[in-house]
Amino acid sequence: MQVHLVHAHPEPQSFSSALAQMAAASLSGYGHSVTVSDLYQMQWNAVATAHDFADRTDHDYMNYALEQRHNHKSDTLSADIMAELDALFAADLLILNFPLYWFSTPAILKGWIDRVLVAGAIYGGKRIYSKGGLVGKRALVTCTLGGRADMFGDDGIHGQLNDMLKHLLQGTLGYTGMTVLNPFYAYHVPYISDADRQQILSDYHERLAGVTDEKGLIMPDLSQFDSRFQPLAT
Amino acid sequence: MQVHLVHAHPEPQSFSSALAQMAAASLSGYGHSVTVSDLYQMQWNAVATAHDFADRTDHDYMNYALEQRHNHKSDTLSADIMAELDALFAADLLILNFPLYWFSTPAILKGWIDRVLVAGAIYGGKRIYSKGGLVGKRALVTCTLGGRADMFGDDGIHGQLNDMLKHLLQGTLGYTGMTVLNPFYAYHVPYISDADRQQILSDYHERLAGVTDEKGLIMPDLSQFDSRFQPLAT
Repeated sequence: MQVHLVHAHPEPQSFSSALAQMAAASLSGYGHSVTVSDLYQMQWNAVATAHDFADRTDHDYMNYALEQRHNHKSDTLSADIMAELDALFAADLLILNFPLYWFSTPAILKGWIDRVLVAGAIYGGKRIYSKGGLVGKRALVTCTLGGRADMFGDDGIHGQLNDMLKHLLQGTLGYTGMTVLNPFYAYHVPYISDADRQQILSDYHERLAGVTDEKGLIMPDLSQFDSRFQPLAT
Repeated sequence: MQVHLVHAHPEPQSFSSALAQMAAASLSGYGHSVTVSDLYQMQWNAVATAHDFADRTDHDYMNYALEQRHNHKSDTLSADIMAELDALFAADLLILNFPLYWFSTPAILKGWIDRVLVAGAIYGGKRIYSKGGLVGKRALVTCTLGGRADMFGDDGIHGQLNDMLKHLLQGTLGYTGMTVLNPFYAYHVPYISDADRQQILSDYHERLAGVTDEKGLIMPDLSQFDSRFQPLAT
């Protein structure tokens, strides 16, 4: 299996970075090939602009998605986007590894999503969910947070953490057609003991052994909707 | 009322930009004072790094939230963050105006959230939701999207759009204590007629007249939880 791991933490000594290193080592150890994009180290450009396109289809009005479509076809996307897109298309498993910032990805990783998940190549028109451009691939979100596990769940103050991340799990990764695995959450990280952190790393190592066999989260089922995405009568 | 409008669209001629201009003009016309931060025009730095802090409390390990706390206290946050924080604290109403990118904000606006909603100043420890640092202020999300309204809702293929935005509406704006108004969504924008777009602008103008009187979305109620955010027995 080919794995592409996208990591986004500003501190190389962080526990999030330790999880990224562990994943790369463990998955290699299990016989997979791993590429890593460390967005902070790469100084990844987070912001979608007209500079992403060497060949504008419309010079007077910048519609980002339309330019993505055109520049993907004409092979004129900027080099940083092309490199990530190649790594993504080559991968069987995508891992997004990050600290939770405001119940979502840090902006630098949001910029990877905005710029690399190119309209036309990855989705478009009716090619979403089980017809999306990345069907057959798997996606895993690995995420550190300060909050305790007991702050989440149906009775937790914030509700289900997967619901907080619906925009990412369903609206982004599921939308592209990927099989989205249940996230690996490391809770309360700044406040726990080193032994507890070692336990999390060990749990993660174990979990990654079975990552090719896990079932994905349930996503909207296109067979329940007509071609205009209207619900079919049941 | 003082209003701070944060806008994030790469194309100044976009409908999203028209909504931002309309909001500034309408709210001024209604007698309010409006400041606007156009993040693309400002070339806002989206990425949280150690450069945000002139006086590091720990030079060997960068904990972003801890440095936010320290540098806010010592008045050593970077100038761009300080200016936005001042505008936010001066405001009675914050408007976030943007095109929906992957069921969330564009990365440049996520970077505003990551960098400006400073730990210590805005939230921290138990100061969240109704005890958050921005209690008494209002927040409105104004958002354009390509999808049709009938793709959302309990029977829609994507579910409720407010659920997709839970990370922003509850996990970010509500978390800070702001009263979060129901978002203003402009659906299917690239595909509708100019007349339909004019109608949306006119609806938005009307809506903004009553923005001081609207009730907010329901947020977690701290009175239902103990001091460790465990649910109280009922």
